[in-house]
Amino acid sequence: MKPDFTKSELIPAIAQDHESGDVLMLAYMNEEAWNETLTSGRAVYYSSSRQKLWRKGEESGHVQHVKGMFLDCDADTILIKVEQVGGAACHAGYRSCLFRQILPETGEVVIVGDRVFDPDRVYGK
Amino acid sequence: MKPDFTKSELIPAIAQDHESGDVLMLAYMNEEAWNETLTSGRAVYYSSSRQKLWRKGEESGHVQHVKGMFLDCDADTILIKVEQVGGAACHAGYRSCLFRQILPETGEVVIVGDRVFDPDRVYGK
Repeated sequence: MKPDFTKSELIPAIAQDHESGDVLMLAYMNEEAWNETLTSGRAVYYSSSRQKLWRKGEESGHVQHVKGMFLDCDADTILIKVEQVGGAACHAGYRSCLFRQILPETGEVVIVGDRVFDPDRVYGK
Repeated sequence: MKPDFTKSELIPAIAQDHESGDVLMLAYMNEEAWNETLTSGRAVYYSSSRQKLWRKGEESGHVQHVKGMFLDCDADTILIKVEQVGGAACHAGYRSCLFRQILPETGEVVIVGDRVFDPDRVYGK
């Protein structure tokens, strides 16, 4: 069984920390990325902006070791439980990409995550 | 601050159980759904198949009370932490829509979730 790539070439894939349960990020997989993730045990996505496979961590070293892969009822959402090497999934240095909470009363933004690394040092920019 | 609907009219929204941390489902919000979720405190999505707002639970009673809303680094992924009324997010009666684990060795499917309700009874089909 695999995601239904006939509905869409790109299927959203949620990465969740396998221990804490924190949702780390959402990216997309095409069929090649799905297959390589399954066989390699490391998260591989498809980058629409770069139009190629995105082997998460290939630049930063912050790879994601896959601990479990799941498909939803309609086979159009992927969930992977991962061990995030380096402790941060986000290119901005936060543990999770979802570090901004929106307060319903005001629409105000509160930063809820800790910065684990300085992106300027990791990516050398 | 709000999701960047200029990139896409529909932004993926992950619903996560606010207590257990289980990822329950992924659906999509347009700007109207985002605004109504924020003001009503209940999860509202946009259904592409029905081409209208999908007030989660309006038929089954299994609404999602929103406990927190989050945006990612690129403002193109939403995370909502919810209290799932009725205990099941999935129309198939499972607590989570992501109840199928795919084993990497064989591609075999293992059902990992419990069925909380019988969809035939809830939806009367």
